[in-house]
Amino acid sequence: MSKINVAVLGATGSVGQRFIQLLENHPYFQVTHLCASENSAGKTYADIMKKRWKISGDIPKYARDIIITLPDPKITQGVKLAFSGLDASIAGEVETAFAEAGIHIISNSKNHRMVENVPLLSAEVNANHLDVLSTQKTPGKIVTNSNCTIMGVTISLKPLYEKFGIESVMLFSMQAISGAGYPGVPTMDILGNVVPFIGGEEDKAEIEPLKCLGRTEGGKIINADFKISAHCNRVPVFDGHTVCVSVKFKKKPTESEILEAWSSFKGEPQELKLPLAPDFPILYRQEEDRPQPRLDLETGRGMTTVVGRLRPDPILDWKYVVLSHNTVRGAAGAAILNAELMYRKNLL
Amino acid sequence: MSKINVAVLGATGSVGQRFIQLLENHPYFQVTHLCASENSAGKTYADIMKKRWKISGDIPKYARDIIITLPDPKITQGVKLAFSGLDASIAGEVETAFAEAGIHIISNSKNHRMVENVPLLSAEVNANHLDVLSTQKTPGKIVTNSNCTIMGVTISLKPLYEKFGIESVMLFSMQAISGAGYPGVPTMDILGNVVPFIGGEEDKAEIEPLKCLGRTEGGKIINADFKISAHCNRVPVFDGHTVCVSVKFKKKPTESEILEAWSSFKGEPQELKLPLAPDFPILYRQEEDRPQPRLDLETGRGMTTVVGRLRPDPILDWKYVVLSHNTVRGAAGAAILNAELMYRKNLL
Amino acid sequence: MSKINVAVLGATGSVGQRFIQLLENHPYFQVTHLCASENSAGKTYADIMKKRWKISGDIPKYARDIIITLPDPKITQGVKLAFSGLDASIAGEVETAFAEAGIHIISNSKNHRMVENVPLLSAEVNANHLDVLSTQKTPGKIVTNSNCTIMGVTISLKPLYEKFGIESVMLFSMQAISGAGYPGVPTMDILGNVVPFIGGEEDKAEIEPLKCLGRTEGGKIINADFKISAHCNRVPVFDGHTVCVSVKFKKKPTESEILEAWSSFKGEPQELKLPLAPDFPILYRQEEDRPQPRLDLETGRGMTTVVGRLRPDPILDWKYVVLSHNTVRGAAGAAILNAELMYRKNLL
Amino acid sequence: MSKINVAVLGATGSVGQRFIQLLENHPYFQVTHLCASENSAGKTYADIMKKRWKISGDIPKYARDIIITLPDPKITQGVKLAFSGLDASIAGEVETAFAEAGIHIISNSKNHRMVENVPLLSAEVNANHLDVLSTQKTPGKIVTNSNCTIMGVTISLKPLYEKFGIESVMLFSMQAISGAGYPGVPTMDILGNVVPFIGGEEDKAEIEPLKCLGRTEGGKIINADFKISAHCNRVPVFDGHTVCVSVKFKKKPTESEILEAWSSFKGEPQELKLPLAPDFPILYRQEEDRPQPRLDLETGRGMTTVVGRLRPDPILDWKYVVLSHNTVRGAAGAAILNAELMYRKNLL
Repeated sequence: MSKINVAVLGATGSVGQRFIQLLENHPYFQVTHLCASENSAGKTYADIMKKRWKISGDIPKYARDIIITLPDPKITQGVKLAFSGLDASIAGEVETAFAEAGIHIISNSKNHRMVENVPLLSAEVNANHLDVLSTQKTPGKIVTNSNCTIMGVTISLKPLYEKFGIESVMLFSMQAISGAGYPGVPTMDILGNVVPFIGGEEDKAEIEPLKCLGRTEGGKIINADFKISAHCNRVPVFDGHTVCVSVKFKKKPTESEILEAWSSFKGEPQELKLPLAPDFPILYRQEEDRPQPRLDLETGRGMTTVVGRLRPDPILDWKYVVLSHNTVRGAAGAAILNAELMYRKNLL
Repeated sequence: MSKINVAVLGATGSVGQRFIQLLENHPYFQVTHLCASENSAGKTYADIMKKRWKISGDIPKYARDIIITLPDPKITQGVKLAFSGLDASIAGEVETAFAEAGIHIISNSKNHRMVENVPLLSAEVNANHLDVLSTQKTPGKIVTNSNCTIMGVTISLKPLYEKFGIESVMLFSMQAISGAGYPGVPTMDILGNVVPFIGGEEDKAEIEPLKCLGRTEGGKIINADFKISAHCNRVPVFDGHTVCVSVKFKKKPTESEILEAWSSFKGEPQELKLPLAPDFPILYRQEEDRPQPRLDLETGRGMTTVVGRLRPDPILDWKYVVLSHNTVRGAAGAAILNAELMYRKNLL
Repeated sequence: MSKINVAVLGATGSVGQRFIQLLENHPYFQVTHLCASENSAGKTYADIMKKRWKISGDIPKYARDIIITLPDPKITQGVKLAFSGLDASIAGEVETAFAEAGIHIISNSKNHRMVENVPLLSAEVNANHLDVLSTQKTPGKIVTNSNCTIMGVTISLKPLYEKFGIESVMLFSMQAISGAGYPGVPTMDILGNVVPFIGGEEDKAEIEPLKCLGRTEGGKIINADFKISAHCNRVPVFDGHTVCVSVKFKKKPTESEILEAWSSFKGEPQELKLPLAPDFPILYRQEEDRPQPRLDLETGRGMTTVVGRLRPDPILDWKYVVLSHNTVRGAAGAAILNAELMYRKNLL
Repeated sequence: MSKINVAVLGATGSVGQRFIQLLENHPYFQVTHLCASENSAGKTYADIMKKRWKISGDIPKYARDIIITLPDPKITQGVKLAFSGLDASIAGEVETAFAEAGIHIISNSKNHRMVENVPLLSAEVNANHLDVLSTQKTPGKIVTNSNCTIMGVTISLKPLYEKFGIESVMLFSMQAISGAGYPGVPTMDILGNVVPFIGGEEDKAEIEPLKCLGRTEGGKIINADFKISAHCNRVPVFDGHTVCVSVKFKKKPTESEILEAWSSFKGEPQELKLPLAPDFPILYRQEEDRPQPRLDLETGRGMTTVVGRLRPDPILDWKYVVLSHNTVRGAAGAAILNAELMYRKNLL
């Protein structure tokens, strides 16, 4: 199979930067277009990003001299797929325009996430949801990935949900500042502080996992039917969302059954050995004080969900801690993995 | 009434420093003895603390020239009461020795907390637990205060427990580094990081509120009978423990009933206008992103528990966020308030 | 003397908030007008500031119900003096309009700082510069204070300059994020990081102290004639600028001569016992690792310049470290002290 | 050439961990012995390090099952070279014992640094200093690397010193907390704070670069003869020491001459393409606000010295900012590069 040409929409933003970094030398995709707003259009990516590139290391060479264009499907000739890191204020409209023009959209934005025939795809969790794409009416298809906070949570729940059933889940997040983009959180708000509120986040955390873990029926996705309660907090961590989780199961598992469910969990990305797929979607750490962002973030090049501290919960059944890399596994990396899966399933 | 002479045990430690700061110019208590280990004994407090005083501002003048002694009741002549911030490794034995010598102990250490006739006292919550002191056999009595993490939580639960009854409580803490004392948490462990584990903390958090909210019967304290599940985390905040709380009630309250229960809550410290008593034990903030350590920590000179974000919980009934100052309200300030209460009730 | 009515221009910004905090219950000044941009005008201060008040503790009660107006001298009836924390983009024009309308301006903005008959006033350093006000042609007079970074440096240099003369000064700053206002520095730029650049700061640091330490001649201020080299850096500290200083003197002082010069230094604010004047403008700390923002910032309620680590410099003559509170002594506090001085000298 | 067997002394400490990480799959060296104190000896490295491994990512597999031994040359059979990250309290004696036993020592400790026939080696700077090894009387030779703070500074000065001569250098450091090892700096001392003092650091910073830049004569190293003044500060940064530098030259260079001197600088490690050698020892960044630890630390896998902000100094001649990775380039990486150089020069 030959490489296909792709565009990155919202190329100057935080998620866009991760797309550009992770797509360097990608075996399936060739970035030919970088799209951003009028302020940036017409200039090279290197020029525009001189003070805005915020990932450690330099801008990948391939991207430096690409001249930024507007996110308009009329301009992106030859592109079959667009990765979208657009701001929610414009993502809905622009993504639809691309889909209508026959360009597939792999989006990290929230706008289409809850449409019933748009997969909220986490490649190891619900690859079967791609079945509903055939009911989308546009020639280009839209696939989204979930909010960064619940990405790792949903992966950790998947094998447990399959084997034991779930009645309810309590979530308590400690979220990194990179989740708010750039400039994002003012330092005066978070240095030596925590903020027990992130606008709109708890709503997403309480519904999106249900869709990811849902089933398809008649070309629609039917949500899983348990309940989630979320407390979302911002903490002064750069990258990496840590979430404390308590779960009540339908069929009560033992500790070793849970550990076994996690360690044996694999999905299509592992079977197909997709480029960004980690060897193991889930790693359980034995140490009593892990996972931690600083020590565990880069596990599986940021694509592995790291779990620890499994112990009985006096109210629900079991509790544990889950960490995932919010801008890799929780955003650009997840989206690219989704695209890789579609590429190998001949859906692009 | 005249001032009574008091000692501070563990005077060089973090809690000891707060005792010394908060007891400056105290109307009831005169610090006459500062006790610490052999390494410090025999030197003036100012000499020993030159590099170890970690509270903003200088060592109070009254304490500077006091010569440190060992924590031995034979040495502390004329002292009727000792505030203990001793390390748990020695607190049990030393506190008992003082009590046997007829010196009352107001302790922040954990050693005697769960003894059935030792009050785990939070002055606004369970002043009636002082009744069990008469069953202690030593001439000096031992009174403890609870762990810093659950101090504010218990205060916030008290009026709700009284009015509505409680079935279960989920707690998720984000705890300040000062809670670990000095040198405490190495910077390499927490800078730009969170640690989802604090040794022994969850055990305390799951039991101590039950004792505080318990009742007395036959000279013993009988714990309240609901269940608590705690996730305890360390975050890079200097002072101030923030806790997310979800509660299931016996009798379902409305939002306004909860707000009313909090705003109308007062205890004996307020009635007696004790020196360290805040005007209001609980302050509810209306802003959607509060409480926050940086903005709310000093409310009521660090003695008010600040609550916010009351909202329905999809699994239990209601959820909210509570902040309290861990080294003031959660440790030295709580202990002094306890002593003030006993002084005014002629128990000293 | 009776209180005079004052306005705060730029009342919603960081410096404006400090003005409002420090002017609560002020014996000379009564805040009657709070001025801000069109977005805020017409609403009460409490309404507008609900999410923007960033100083620990609540908005002072006196300010809560004041209805914000535009910064227009036609509106601020009865005001004799305006404290300006305006953004530099509009401060020049607005301040001039107030002066022309007969309202004195005490400004923290940079726009008029280097005008030759506008004092760059640091009340203990160059009170005599107020002499040049008579040459200003507007009925209202404009007085500025220096940049926050060099405020403490200039105070520390003043007694040394007087007694020993200065040939050159090397400055290396580690500046708090509050110096950039709100939202100011994005967290992604500074968390666990330092940024060795602050736009325009080194230029100010290399010239403003020379004006403060200058002399008046014929109604103009003539700058001091030594050289300054500055390296300015941003560090993840909330409040408090720390500056390392190396100095070459004309007449070589001994260590004790320098310490004596600092400890004996007093200015008119101390003689007149002005409300915001600290007892001592300069405090030298003996500990080898001081001053530090966390421990020394509140010295003299944030108005004392704290100095430490005096030691020989192998290249210049002596080196030391100086800390001052950038939003109190370095901004609003300095401006109010300037106004207090003018009030007592009957210049208002 | 075949691999030679090496030991790591002080294997459990911060520098020891970096040695172990950087020596994984090394083409010249095979780690056969890990040495530490009695507390660790007899157990596997993985056992001992369960809670003490502080580098992101896991302990390299090769090291996990090595049984820790005491740092005693009688035990380390077959070892020709030992990398020492020992604490200064014991490094002097232990390193000498190894050298006497015929095992070469590549040390990061300070104990032997200033001995006149011990090279203070920075492989690109003073490879010629290896000539003095022949005058060491022990069969094993001792080679040290400089203090982490001035490593990058010395590299940045080397080409300038060669071409233009230096009269004096002012240094102002902002040093990462990892430089103090583990547990190292207590969080209470540095969170949201800076500490303008690091014990012994300024003394080292003012002398070590002079030895590195010195010449050899009669089997001894003669220090360079210019003067250095250093202000050393601790800041809340994890890895990466940033230093502001002002230099007075003998022969005045232009800006472009300095930039050319840096960009053309290469040493023997580059010519020999040593495994850890970066392509360029020095990288100059054009952006006005660089280098920064977060963005530039990993340049050249942490082995490149990153320089920026070259501009005229009003007092000396030029000023700039230099960043180097304190635990890679400034410690373990530098030491391994030194050993690689010796290996290729047949000195091992």
